[in-house]
Amino acid sequence: MKRSSNGHYLQGIYRLFPQLTQDILSDLPNFGATPEMISRIKDMIEYNVVGGKMNRGMSVVDTVKIVRGESDLPADINEKAMVLGWSVEWLQAFFLVSDDIMDESPTRRGQPAWYRKPEVGILAINDSFILEACIYRLFKKYFRSEPYYVDLIELMLETSYQTELGQMVDILTASENDVNLDRFSIEKHRYIVEYKTAYYSFYLPVALALLITGTKANSPVFQVAKDILIPLGIYFQVQDDYLDCYGEPSVIGKIGTDIEDNKCSWLVVQALDRVTPEQRQILNDNYGRKTPAEHAQRVKELYKKLDIEAVYRAYEDKTIAELQDKISKVDESLVPRQVFTAFLNKVANRSK
Amino acid sequence: MKRSSNGHYLQGIYRLFPQLTQDILSDLPNFGATPEMISRIKDMIEYNVVGGKMNRGMSVVDTVKIVRGESDLPADINEKAMVLGWSVEWLQAFFLVSDDIMDESPTRRGQPAWYRKPEVGILAINDSFILEACIYRLFKKYFRSEPYYVDLIELMLETSYQTELGQMVDILTASENDVNLDRFSIEKHRYIVEYKTAYYSFYLPVALALLITGTKANSPVFQVAKDILIPLGIYFQVQDDYLDCYGEPSVIGKIGTDIEDNKCSWLVVQALDRVTPEQRQILNDNYGRKTPAEHAQRVKELYKKLDIEAVYRAYEDKTIAELQDKISKVDESLVPRQVFTAFLNKVANRSK
Repeated sequence: MKRSSNGHYLQGIYRLFPQLTQDILSDLPNFGATPEMISRIKDMIEYNVVGGKMNRGMSVVDTVKIVRGESDLPADINEKAMVLGWSVEWLQAFFLVSDDIMDESPTRRGQPAWYRKPEVGILAINDSFILEACIYRLFKKYFRSEPYYVDLIELMLETSYQTELGQMVDILTASENDVNLDRFSIEKHRYIVEYKTAYYSFYLPVALALLITGTKANSPVFQVAKDILIPLGIYFQVQDDYLDCYGEPSVIGKIGTDIEDNKCSWLVVQALDRVTPEQRQILNDNYGRKTPAEHAQRVKELYKKLDIEAVYRAYEDKTIAELQDKISKVDESLVPRQVFTAFLNKVANRSK
Repeated sequence: MKRSSNGHYLQGIYRLFPQLTQDILSDLPNFGATPEMISRIKDMIEYNVVGGKMNRGMSVVDTVKIVRGESDLPADINEKAMVLGWSVEWLQAFFLVSDDIMDESPTRRGQPAWYRKPEVGILAINDSFILEACIYRLFKKYFRSEPYYVDLIELMLETSYQTELGQMVDILTASENDVNLDRFSIEKHRYIVEYKTAYYSFYLPVALALLITGTKANSPVFQVAKDILIPLGIYFQVQDDYLDCYGEPSVIGKIGTDIEDNKCSWLVVQALDRVTPEQRQILNDNYGRKTPAEHAQRVKELYKKLDIEAVYRAYEDKTIAELQDKISKVDESLVPRQVFTAFLNKVANRSK
């Protein structure tokens, strides 16, 4: 099995993965599946669900520990938290398999994207549906008799819808071959990062953890969590955009190509908000060109002239201060502030 | 709005469609949607959900009427039945949009397939997800406070999973360019028609109708319904395969091309079950060739020699007799037999 660099910390949750896969597989004969079908679905799940950093999955477990004030969870609640952690990873697999087709991405997590495998191809669309369906099979197995069962399902369905709406705007904004900066705006960038990423990556794990630790679905704590975790998730994505251009390649583990790839990055929408007509022409002429390298260089020079780095620093300082302020006002009879400080400490001022 | 040939009969359920679309659209600002997004989603829904024959949608309403013994339903239960009828049509739209991409179909219901529209393309994958998500938004709006809410969701999720498993086998069986009859078998044909079509087209509408007329999810009636409706749905698909070859084009409204298209049709799997090695070679040499027309002609001659028509007649007579027998044994304290005879009468011996 592929392993994350997080190593030891992840062992527990990784140990559960074969069990969950087996739950799906041993349920398949109830759907008339042949050994060949079961073997193919096993390969498909293992290829696509494992191999990420597991941040989202671990967030569920970590949040449950903080909410319960226990560093070691009882076996049953620990298993439930890990199942939900994996359900977020399964949701992500559903989106990554289909996003890669829509984006025509050659690779994912250092291996060919699933749809690029010769024996898969366009069947990957249907495989992404099956990955999504697995979430609800697992919910049914592990949570059917819990009072919050329907809340888990509704939360997962609503988060899927949010992510799909974000993906729609992302694809409509990303240009197909033609570079047209008119489609980019601060508002669209914000919508995409909020809906396509922040809900499922930051809010969902905490909301799932709250539900299984006994929080009623109508509790005001969900809005409190959303008010903190969505801006935090947006900040995380803005950092990603920043690091793509200004991060140390040896630290972030890749050479950023957002400028060449015509990405609707936070940097370019901030630049567009500040350019003179002449500077906008420079962006028009140079953004989204793969070669020669001078094009990207000219965009970076313009970023320097506009001091986008300072704009970023100001955004970062302001966002961290606002989040700290919001967290300090959280009513701890509802939820421990540490749920949010744990997230903020992982994200704030990160360099990779 | 496009209209079905069923005309007057459908007016009621058609009147509800704009309301349901509006439910989805007026919910979208809660997801931060802009007017442009809302307008695009409106177009997408109208293009893909309307325009079918509405058999599945009407089955829900008809079944509710029979179960309640009322030809005119009270307004509230009538609306609920129609919402569920549309939810089946929405589910079908989810599958048709994605199937058309996977099958590279040029048209659907007499217009270009959604993904073929220049402004859509591969974004159709994500649109199919949004169509699926709409089902659960509508369930939440109309059924959130009903005791059977979670049963509706579970039924819809399970039926989706069944359909996706059927689609997986269908695509794996359909050849990509290469004709290989070894992949075809009676068992695979049966799996595909049962899972890809019968569950969502025949069982789902009745099961939904049973749930909203007060049947508990653990009632034995669901298994009774399945035992009748799944063979009935399979028979319906076998008829489709038969009519493609032997139906009157002016009656069925199209010229069948299953032989030319290398379809895993009921006719060819029956033929494969009966051929000599020499006859199998004839199939190998002639099945799945678009031109010249002699290829398909030779397959039809072989079908004649094997008297596949008689095999079909025997299957049809046996299936109808078995279904009548099963229906006659239905405990009417559980469900009126008419629920099933209504279906059987529509399907049996149809010529289009």
